[in-house]
Amino acid sequence: MTQNDPLGGTHLILGGARSGKSRFAENIINHAGGGIYVATGRAWDDEMANRIDLHKQSRGDLWQTIEEPLDLCGTLATCNRTVAKPVLVDCLTLWLTNLMLEDRDIDAEFDQLCELIPTLKIPVLLVSNEVGFGIVPENAMARTFRDHAGRLHQRIAELVDRVTLVVAGIPMQVK
Amino acid sequence: MTQNDPLGGTHLILGGARSGKSRFAENIINHAGGGIYVATGRAWDDEMANRIDLHKQSRGDLWQTIEEPLDLCGTLATCNRTVAKPVLVDCLTLWLTNLMLEDRDIDAEFDQLCELIPTLKIPVLLVSNEVGFGIVPENAMARTFRDHAGRLHQRIAELVDRVTLVVAGIPMQVK
Amino acid sequence: MTQNDPLGGTHLILGGARSGKSRFAENIINHAGGGIYVATGRAWDDEMANRIDLHKQSRGDLWQTIEEPLDLCGTLATCNRTVAKPVLVDCLTLWLTNLMLEDRDIDAEFDQLCELIPTLKIPVLLVSNEVGFGIVPENAMARTFRDHAGRLHQRIAELVDRVTLVVAGIPMQVK
Repeated sequence: MTQNDPLGGTHLILGGARSGKSRFAENIINHAGGGIYVATGRAWDDEMANRIDLHKQSRGDLWQTIEEPLDLCGTLATCNRTVAKPVLVDCLTLWLTNLMLEDRDIDAEFDQLCELIPTLKIPVLLVSNEVGFGIVPENAMARTFRDHAGRLHQRIAELVDRVTLVVAGIPMQVK
Repeated sequence: MTQNDPLGGTHLILGGARSGKSRFAENIINHAGGGIYVATGRAWDDEMANRIDLHKQSRGDLWQTIEEPLDLCGTLATCNRTVAKPVLVDCLTLWLTNLMLEDRDIDAEFDQLCELIPTLKIPVLLVSNEVGFGIVPENAMARTFRDHAGRLHQRIAELVDRVTLVVAGIPMQVK
Repeated sequence: MTQNDPLGGTHLILGGARSGKSRFAENIINHAGGGIYVATGRAWDDEMANRIDLHKQSRGDLWQTIEEPLDLCGTLATCNRTVAKPVLVDCLTLWLTNLMLEDRDIDAEFDQLCELIPTLKIPVLLVSNEVGFGIVPENAMARTFRDHAGRLHQRIAELVDRVTLVVAGIPMQVK
């Protein structure tokens, strides 16, 4: 595992909406023969259900999919103990959305994830939406979400081996 | 035409609002002695009319301006056949706005543009707004717009010779 | 003062919400033994008051804090004449917010700041929110704010010695 191995270690992959961040992450793992796809998204309406289905169809047979909207830390810990395959988490911002909707202790969840990351022996790609480059949202919940997401990205970026910002499908190396 | 020639080939220039993306593109063509300016914007209110006028005044005499809100593909194809000058399209996101307002077939238009790009013999600079780095918009039309823009940028970025992200007027090379 | 000295000259530090831009700037000055912190934020509600307090607590004793919501240019000019320490301005977008709320002449203020920057003999770090990468805001005031911020960033970026975009706490060099 070297800096030049795109699959080496832990990797935070940030991007805007429809930036190609998930596809970029999937391609890395496809080149390595597939892996575990941890889907955090919940189909809370038809628009979302369609997106999840489209994503599933596009991945094909090299992948095992685990749908887990809340217990991301437990899922990653289990994968780390039991499989030798790379894991793609898609995505942290949907996980955060679910934690907020279920009124979970966000800081405790973030702490748990950040304690887990340095112990990971398998390659883990964490995909997340960069949502902080717009005007301050008028909606207080959206402001809180944006703050949580920003703080989480900072903490994870410090811990992982590499950070990529995907712009129009092209990776820009951040770390 | 080399990688070091800033005018070489096709070039997608992304940036935020008031990022200096248009000025960056204009400067490239100004240094080459001018070209064709394809304006896709429509003056649907006074704010917009003012912006278009200011832009026109700032370009000066080296430019020929074509105003074309919808038939971007036809305009580019004609330029490609009939002129030897570089073309600046300002911008793809306004074109997309017009297509949506006129209820055109977005995917068909995108397909047509993406088939055209590899056939271009003249330098073409495509300016567009990066709009995907904020909170998910509450407005469904805005979400659709954002999705279309993101998908278009990914497709074009794969086809063009270079991609630039303009931040505070300074170009960051993406591809 | 060289390009490799992180504290050299003037420095525009852009980032999204909770991107770690302030912390990045503070760390640069902390490593140099502290400096002057020019806080432009006003506690117009409890959420904001909390944020200001948290920021103050996190800076500690190496810093002298000046709270100045409007007369940024006068404050910087005084620092430049009277102290030999580096100055951190946090942040330009809050200053712009205050100017707009007080109905000041925005262009005159921007002109004054841009005339001042080339005369600065002390290191000055200007932190600001990049707010232009989202969907066009429905609120007209927000659109005006976004336009002002974008124009200001372009003008300052041209004048300063370096420009950094902070993503998830990690600096990306723009200039």
